[in-house]
Amino acid sequence: MLGNFTYCNPTRVHFGQDALDKLGGELANYGSKVLLTYGGGSIKRSGLYDQIVAILQDCGKQVFEMPGVMPNPTVEKLYEGCKVAREQNVDLILAVGGGSVCDYAKAVSVSAWCEEDPWEKYYLRMEEVDNPIIPVGCVLTMVGTGSEMNGGSVITNHTQKRKIGHVFGSNVMPRFTILNPTYTYTVPMRQMVAGIYDAFNHICEQYFSGTDDNTTDYIAEGLMKSLVHSSREALADPHNYEARSNIMWAATWALNTLLAMGKTTDWEVHMIGQSIGAYTDATHGMTLSAVSLAYYRFIMPYGLAKFARFATNVWGIDPAGKTEKELAEAGLDAMEAWMKELGVAMNIRELGVTEDMIEGIADGTFLMTGGYKVLTREDVIAILRASL
Amino acid sequence: MLGNFTYCNPTRVHFGQDALDKLGGELANYGSKVLLTYGGGSIKRSGLYDQIVAILQDCGKQVFEMPGVMPNPTVEKLYEGCKVAREQNVDLILAVGGGSVCDYAKAVSVSAWCEEDPWEKYYLRMEEVDNPIIPVGCVLTMVGTGSEMNGGSVITNHTQKRKIGHVFGSNVMPRFTILNPTYTYTVPMRQMVAGIYDAFNHICEQYFSGTDDNTTDYIAEGLMKSLVHSSREALADPHNYEARSNIMWAATWALNTLLAMGKTTDWEVHMIGQSIGAYTDATHGMTLSAVSLAYYRFIMPYGLAKFARFATNVWGIDPAGKTEKELAEAGLDAMEAWMKELGVAMNIRELGVTEDMIEGIADGTFLMTGGYKVLTREDVIAILRASL
Repeated sequence: MLGNFTYCNPTRVHFGQDALDKLGGELANYGSKVLLTYGGGSIKRSGLYDQIVAILQDCGKQVFEMPGVMPNPTVEKLYEGCKVAREQNVDLILAVGGGSVCDYAKAVSVSAWCEEDPWEKYYLRMEEVDNPIIPVGCVLTMVGTGSEMNGGSVITNHTQKRKIGHVFGSNVMPRFTILNPTYTYTVPMRQMVAGIYDAFNHICEQYFSGTDDNTTDYIAEGLMKSLVHSSREALADPHNYEARSNIMWAATWALNTLLAMGKTTDWEVHMIGQSIGAYTDATHGMTLSAVSLAYYRFIMPYGLAKFARFATNVWGIDPAGKTEKELAEAGLDAMEAWMKELGVAMNIRELGVTEDMIEGIADGTFLMTGGYKVLTREDVIAILRASL
Repeated sequence: MLGNFTYCNPTRVHFGQDALDKLGGELANYGSKVLLTYGGGSIKRSGLYDQIVAILQDCGKQVFEMPGVMPNPTVEKLYEGCKVAREQNVDLILAVGGGSVCDYAKAVSVSAWCEEDPWEKYYLRMEEVDNPIIPVGCVLTMVGTGSEMNGGSVITNHTQKRKIGHVFGSNVMPRFTILNPTYTYTVPMRQMVAGIYDAFNHICEQYFSGTDDNTTDYIAEGLMKSLVHSSREALADPHNYEARSNIMWAATWALNTLLAMGKTTDWEVHMIGQSIGAYTDATHGMTLSAVSLAYYRFIMPYGLAKFARFATNVWGIDPAGKTEKELAEAGLDAMEAWMKELGVAMNIRELGVTEDMIEGIADGTFLMTGGYKVLTREDVIAILRASL
């Protein structure tokens, strides 16, 4: 651990089958006007919407609604939410849904009182927030993004073909989050595995970087082992509470800033994946899985020792009789086998990417500097072609 | 992860060689009256005292001092601190030192405005805090207790021969903590290893409990591996910054509530150790090391699967050809060998415990219910005799 850092994560997490019982107590900390935001009809079908509205009413809240938040929330939807939040002068934004809804709530939170175009200020220019922030609370129904306990917010601009994530500070993190693993039971299998891979990849992005010894890399290995173990149980029985609860909590810690403390991080898989997302609107976790193996095999020679450690410490591969390279390759092979078990997308063609999009996706890919190799545009193109 | 829980840890941690540069910014959040509390003269010899007083003066603070906090802070010292804090109506308590000083600061924080005897209310009766709490900040100089990022506070009453820890809620946790690993360089080797074992045992106390699968147990294994790895480097070279920084951060996470989420925990080693501490005033970490092996070997049959997992996942012991019991024993043997490498106390006789104290120590030992076996008084006596 050679880097200096400040760690602060004030989000209060209520976890478990009875977690929603804590919502009323949390609501008491805020004023009367609540903007309730959510996605499609799933929370209405499951009855969660009715439960939450009843709690809001019991607490005497005046509820404004912003439904229809899409999987990759758009800048137009952001403007729409800002208008309501500002006109009604809301005291709290309550997000009910998956990572996109949480991301969206945070985007509205920082943007509603922004005097400029928030897309330009907070996404294109990535500036610090200098206007009032509306507090956010979350009720999570889908696992993977970690948005429930971090300051991250990804917004998509289809006109500009840009999907940009801004990781805001601890003042933008949700004030509270309700995590009830049973809410994730009704998520379709394809979404469940995409979320599991999203969480796993968040860990990879922070793990596959740096050469110093770091406590957080040991924590990362533990989280990866827990995710792999529980994902197999959840595949066999999606209603296995123990498995779904472990996945939910591991996914939260995969991206709540702890793993990045004191070390460099990569995030190139996310950069490529987000650029694919801007072209295809494919499920986020699937855009990551589809390019991960090509990417990690491409950078493996530049971080060989870490990939060899990954093989042993995460996948339990015996190093005896193997060169470091063989060991490292065996680790990625084990990861590939697990990804196939999960049933995540293994190439970008199945996400709708065609040969003619490759150059545009590469142009829209941010080139990060924290990984084992700083990619060139040509490297990105090579990885995308290898992922077709 | 089968248990419900609420997780919240709002402490802002500034970590690294330049962490003290953040103190001024933190101080700006509080009023002008600061109670500076510390132990003996080590921070004066190291120059840290002068640095901190200069920062306090630059920030225009009026400084009141409470020096002389002893390794196991006493109830008489608590009353003394409360008197100053209350009479001067201080706005912040700044603890500079190790876990005892941080524990002490939190004790004063909750006790200064307590209308009853705080020893009785908050330690003997373990009541919730219902009076104003004075904010606490920490500058840590010694690693091990985790007090820098939790609500725990242990106070000793020599008259009553009781050493009691109360784990207060997130409102009592330090508002900020400065962690600079170089401050720990000057700690004598015996204190360093006691701190490392204290941190390791905090993880054991939370790990050796429960039979369900739990994400936090995987995190615990990672933290234990990191501590073992870095402790060996620190033994070889106490000025190895990488090692000392990993130990410092792992020790913080060993006891900042995360590892206990969603699971039962044990804490019987601490209960026995604290009772020994009340009789001998021995270094806390050494009281733990001196009884740990006898305790874990005593309870091993009741939690065999977890001890076998410990052997493989923490110590890398190959299970091939071993019964579960042999594997479990090999894990504790590996732990014993590492403890001898560290040079921690391996029996209670060397801490000054004599045969005639055994019954009294057993009488002063709280019997916890979260571990693999609920001990009887006779069990405690058997463990103490095996530790002599």
